[in-house]
Amino acid sequence: MATIADAEAIAEQRLRMFADAGVAEEAAMGPMRANFVDWVRPRLADGTYIGCQVEDDGRLVGGAGLWVIDWPPHFMDAEPQRAYLLNFYVAPEMRRHGLARELLALAVAEAKARGIVVVTLHASKFGKPLYEKAGFKLSNEMMLRA
Amino acid sequence: MATIADAEAIAEQRLRMFADAGVAEEAAMGPMRANFVDWVRPRLADGTYIGCQVEDDGRLVGGAGLWVIDWPPHFMDAEPQRAYLLNFYVAPEMRRHGLARELLALAVAEAKARGIVVVTLHASKFGKPLYEKAGFKLSNEMMLRA
Repeated sequence: MATIADAEAIAEQRLRMFADAGVAEEAAMGPMRANFVDWVRPRLADGTYIGCQVEDDGRLVGGAGLWVIDWPPHFMDAEPQRAYLLNFYVAPEMRRHGLARELLALAVAEAKARGIVVVTLHASKFGKPLYEKAGFKLSNEMMLRA
Repeated sequence: MATIADAEAIAEQRLRMFADAGVAEEAAMGPMRANFVDWVRPRLADGTYIGCQVEDDGRLVGGAGLWVIDWPPHFMDAEPQRAYLLNFYVAPEMRRHGLARELLALAVAEAKARGIVVVTLHASKFGKPLYEKAGFKLSNEMMLRA
């Protein structure tokens, strides 16, 4: 499990995740990276960011984060905590061995262990089949870039 | 604009919104309503819930809320504030007169005025065409009910 000391490593995984998905130029991600470190550090400290990190021979090869959000109480879950899965990443050389599936199951189990019943995420086209196998379904979220 | 005194009225609009969309039994919404009042009151106080309320002859006939979220810094917006639109409601007798369109434009303008560039929401099947006309697009959000 991640601690405050892992803030920079988590930001690096976030950057790699977007770069590998081909959705963002590296140049556009500089401000994101610095701001993300500032964002995640206090949340690692207060437990609203739960980081699962995977090491292989002492080397970081994957990770998944859960951001615990005080969600508006809803008819689906009157208790206001939801988990948002983010920074889900497996190093290229470690792929195709079931690690992503295990990591996702671990993250969902961490959410359940905290009594959280709704987990959301934004899926890349590469991640979507994995999430579907784990029971995730496309939601009715809509987005406007103002 | 809503104040703390409007917390109960906003919770009532939230309940009516879900009831009118036919997605929830009223019985299931009792805990939601009480919890929502507790959730929204401190956010009305600190400005992270922005409520637009519409009155007609002193009677509340519609409303829209924006919840300002400290979102994880992203390549799309390195500044970490996003707005989530919720409790979007127009009383049945006031529908079909363009009020929903005006209210949505007002809410988006409130977000922009705060420098927020990404607005998200979860759309009912009734609301979806309205949001599409305003430029909202379905996102890649996926959800698991654990």
